[in-house]
Amino acid sequence: MTTTVGKLIGVSLGPGNPQWLTRAAWSLLSEARCWAWPVAKVGGESYARAILERAGLAPPPRTLVLHFPMIRDRRLLEAHWRTAAEASLAILREGIDLPFLVEGDASFYATFRHLERAIRELDPTIRSEVIPGVASPLAAAALSGRALCDGEESLAIVPATIGLERLERLLTDFEIVVLMKVRPMLAEVITLLERRGLSHKAIFVERAGTPEERVVTDLGQLKDQEVHYLSLLIVHSHDGEAALGMRGT
Amino acid sequence: MTTTVGKLIGVSLGPGNPQWLTRAAWSLLSEARCWAWPVAKVGGESYARAILERAGLAPPPRTLVLHFPMIRDRRLLEAHWRTAAEASLAILREGIDLPFLVEGDASFYATFRHLERAIRELDPTIRSEVIPGVASPLAAAALSGRALCDGEESLAIVPATIGLERLERLLTDFEIVVLMKVRPMLAEVITLLERRGLSHKAIFVERAGTPEERVVTDLGQLKDQEVHYLSLLIVHSHDGEAALGMRGT
Repeated sequence: MTTTVGKLIGVSLGPGNPQWLTRAAWSLLSEARCWAWPVAKVGGESYARAILERAGLAPPPRTLVLHFPMIRDRRLLEAHWRTAAEASLAILREGIDLPFLVEGDASFYATFRHLERAIRELDPTIRSEVIPGVASPLAAAALSGRALCDGEESLAIVPATIGLERLERLLTDFEIVVLMKVRPMLAEVITLLERRGLSHKAIFVERAGTPEERVVTDLGQLKDQEVHYLSLLIVHSHDGEAALGMRGT
Repeated sequence: MTTTVGKLIGVSLGPGNPQWLTRAAWSLLSEARCWAWPVAKVGGESYARAILERAGLAPPPRTLVLHFPMIRDRRLLEAHWRTAAEASLAILREGIDLPFLVEGDASFYATFRHLERAIRELDPTIRSEVIPGVASPLAAAALSGRALCDGEESLAIVPATIGLERLERLLTDFEIVVLMKVRPMLAEVITLLERRGLSHKAIFVERAGTPEERVVTDLGQLKDQEVHYLSLLIVHSHDGEAALGMRGT
């Protein structure tokens, strides 16, 4: 007798534009018997699910909504992952493959591997895979009209929470610095960039690829604004220097 | 009288698996009247073009092969870009949109923006756009079985040419270091990682998504081997430390 257990699949959807889905994601989701997706609040919206709505891709009859609150308390988080893992495992054990929807890329500041780990703690034999996708800094770069990085350039990608002191060092040491989820620090970061004469070398991108997408190069206007938590800042901090002989400007 | 000039489009194809093409890339290339792609040698193979062959996507009757040799001499390179720009411009001025094929992502260590600049130097009115795609570190992470970065982690992406001294500092300062195009430095880098006790925290990935793909975690075996130039190394240098409370291991 063979028991076939389903496979867990982290499906990267890209940051927002349904045209940025990969063919792999599209065909997998079109044929899947069940989709799982995370919500931050019970009954709340899912950013990933909304991308598929815009894509015109209808969910299968069966769906699994997993509650991952945006909290930092590890014990509470573990409890939520455990609950999500149990619900996922029940479906996998019916022999159903379970795609888990991820906005952006499932390997890039995403929840997927936490869910995978929690499931493996319950059943180490569960197979899994990740379908890679368009990560938000690449989407933002495409919209910005210039390369993210080139030639011999070095790139640092950091959460905005690293603090201003370390950020200042990175701006010296790296040709390009990407600040992820910049919202909580935006005003301070803009002030720092202005002081360093770098504010015109930065690009702010919010919800790339969605109908609410914004690309802002005049950072001053952002200082008093509320921005979305899915926003990032690309700083070409060495722009105009001769560090790279073949650079265009 | 309206003259319609074509648009230049940098089309990211991802690093190798034709299933990793985006829907945007697929539909654009399916309908395009002409494709352009780069070769390093006259009459040579194109890595990007090979991805589309594996995808079963046939080129349109008209194609433009652009010669970008792998050299560092800036004046020679500029001459090649200029020649490529003139050939591209002739097609754009016929009113034909011109997709330029890029392996990986067109914003990520790619030639596309050089071509765009060279064309704009001849005609500043030419419109262009980039379709983002799967960048190789994200594809490599998907294959590696773990996230590239997570939570409060910081990520440095650098060409292997930065040198061992700077690399050693990055391994201290960043949770994750990605070394792009690691071939010329591979033996020295492995020796450094072994000395620092980090070699078991590194993953080598070569030609992700192609039939020749390799994922190697036992780095010692690579020391005497010739590897492909499209290869990278991901080092989770702080693995096992308590830097991130919610990390799985």
